Amino acid sequence: MPEFDLIARIRERASLRADVLLGIGDDAALLRVPAGQLLVVSCDTLNAGVHFPLDTAPADIGHKALAVNLSDLAAMAAQPAWCTLSLSLPEADADWLNGFLDGFLALAHAHGVALVGGDTTRGPLSIGVTVHGFVPEALALRRAGAQAGDELWLTGTLGDAAAALTLRAATTPVDPLLTARLNRPTPRVAAGLALRGLAHAGIDVSDGLLADLGHVLAASGVGAQIDLARLPTSAALAAAIGESGRWPLQLGGGDDYELCFTAAPEQHAAIVAALAAVDTPVQVIGYIAAAPGVRVLAADGSAYTPSQSGYQHFAKPHHE
Amino acid sequence: MPEFDLIARIRERASLRADVLLGIGDDAALLRVPAGQLLVVSCDTLNAGVHFPLDTAPADIGHKALAVNLSDLAAMAAQPAWCTLSLSLPEADADWLNGFLDGFLALAHAHGVALVGGDTTRGPLSIGVTVHGFVPEALALRRAGAQAGDELWLTGTLGDAAAALTLRAATTPVDPLLTARLNRPTPRVAAGLALRGLAHAGIDVSDGLLADLGHVLAASGVGAQIDLARLPTSAALAAAIGESGRWPLQLGGGDDYELCFTAAPEQHAAIVAALAAVDTPVQVIGYIAAAPGVRVLAADGSAYTPSQSGYQHFAKPHHE
Repeated sequence: MPEFDLIARIRERASLRADVLLGIGDDAALLRVPAGQLLVVSCDTLNAGVHFPLDTAPADIGHKALAVNLSDLAAMAAQPAWCTLSLSLPEADADWLNGFLDGFLALAHAHGVALVGGDTTRGPLSIGVTVHGFVPEALALRRAGAQAGDELWLTGTLGDAAAALTLRAATTPVDPLLTARLNRPTPRVAAGLALRGLAHAGIDVSDGLLADLGHVLAASGVGAQIDLARLPTSAALAAAIGESGRWPLQLGGGDDYELCFTAAPEQHAAIVAALAAVDTPVQVIGYIAAAPGVRVLAADGSAYTPSQSGYQHFAKPHHE
Repeated sequence: MPEFDLIARIRERASLRADVLLGIGDDAALLRVPAGQLLVVSCDTLNAGVHFPLDTAPADIGHKALAVNLSDLAAMAAQPAWCTLSLSLPEADADWLNGFLDGFLALAHAHGVALVGGDTTRGPLSIGVTVHGFVPEALALRRAGAQAGDELWLTGTLGDAAAALTLRAATTPVDPLLTARLNRPTPRVAAGLALRGLAHAGIDVSDGLLADLGHVLAASGVGAQIDLARLPTSAALAAAIGESGRWPLQLGGGDDYELCFTAAPEQHAAIVAALAAVDTPVQVIGYIAAAPGVRVLAADGSAYTPSQSGYQHFAKPHHE
């Protein structure tokens, strides 16, 4: 199957939007950005064997490749609009491509995102995605902006994806709910939009809570306290791994793609209501302090020293 | 050298523009598109050993990775503005990265392009670039729009890059001028801008003249005649390879990144003047015909049958 058949297959399955004047099929896409909004752009690449296990299903790879990018738009409180796809394949495999597109395009359609371009190359399996969205300038959710006294919030639950990887590595049976969190992360787009005007600063947890929170704190010039007892934990994780075993996963493991954000305490009720309206669980896990650094407190108030403070990863796709 | 050092190195060397409200260092970039202009987006990935020889100098790889993308903007008559960079590296090598950035950023600066984001991952050497530019809607140069009777034009010269690859494969000494055309292609950005309002249709020659012209003809529903004797040939190519040997390279070889475009004959003088003003050589190589297909005529008027009609490449980066 030559490249043009690949592109034709992708093109015939891509849907369009009214703001796409020219999509797949020319030297570049022609797109209309709404007046009064900023363009928001992010890109993340997933490499086989590094960012997903080699035996991951093609549809899961397709889902995840777009999800991790939409997660970055969510973390800016942006409305997703378009994406491009750079697909490097060791061979032209129609079944693989169809499965991949099933996962990729289902998520794209769910978020009204049009695939407007890309390229296909021969090489080791690698998927590069660039996403584009919109946000009014005053409503963008940046890393800078956290203020001492802010409540520290987190959507969803933490540690499920890292638990799936850890259990898998130990050849322990893995609850499919945990595996689904690793392979099919939910980008918190609706939550990001709901937080417009409410949150001071935010980031998505892709590299681990301590690592990603660290970026917010560094950008904002503040510190934080986290209460271990308040870390939101799924029932599946609680059933699989005891507290002391899961804390390092929840603090240091990546791939959760939850939103971590800070907001003034006066916004507490508004945030609870806004996220309930988009069916997104959310919880306060600590607060922002003026003094730099992160203090993690156990339930008895003693300081907890993480055994794994956000693994240093040359490998993670990182959107800076 | 962990990932964050890589990103810091890239970040400290990236320059900004007034329309970049937030560049490298958050979950996504925040960018302002000028009112009344369309956003133009294209992406191409280069894989080591597929799109460039493994021994290519890092600075050449950096130059080429951006150049092939700017070439797509040129082919839309767009003004380049921003780019993102997805860099997959087998190891974190500071010398390699510095060399790569030398080539990449020198070309970016020459075109006023700001690097606004990207990611670094561990994996086989691969460089994914997404470029963004602007064009007023009425002035975009598409593939569709060629009309019977149009003159068929080409910037620069053809076949140099393919000759460099061919001679190299034959372990024949290669004129550095030919190698430079392969490793350091010139994106015809100024020519694309100069053609606004003058050309009917255009494309950049990345996959070979016949293949790329074929896209224009298919999109426009027309055919073309090419006169072999008018194919622009560099002195270096003419000195290295005889006519019958170089024609297949000029018709079927890729990597030239010249612009191929069509325009009404009445625009002939205006096009010559507009491209002279931006120091871009340009030549008529044939015309657009109503009947589909491409006829290639030798100097004596006989039909020439190309031995290589644009190689079928699963491998080429292709921006559809």
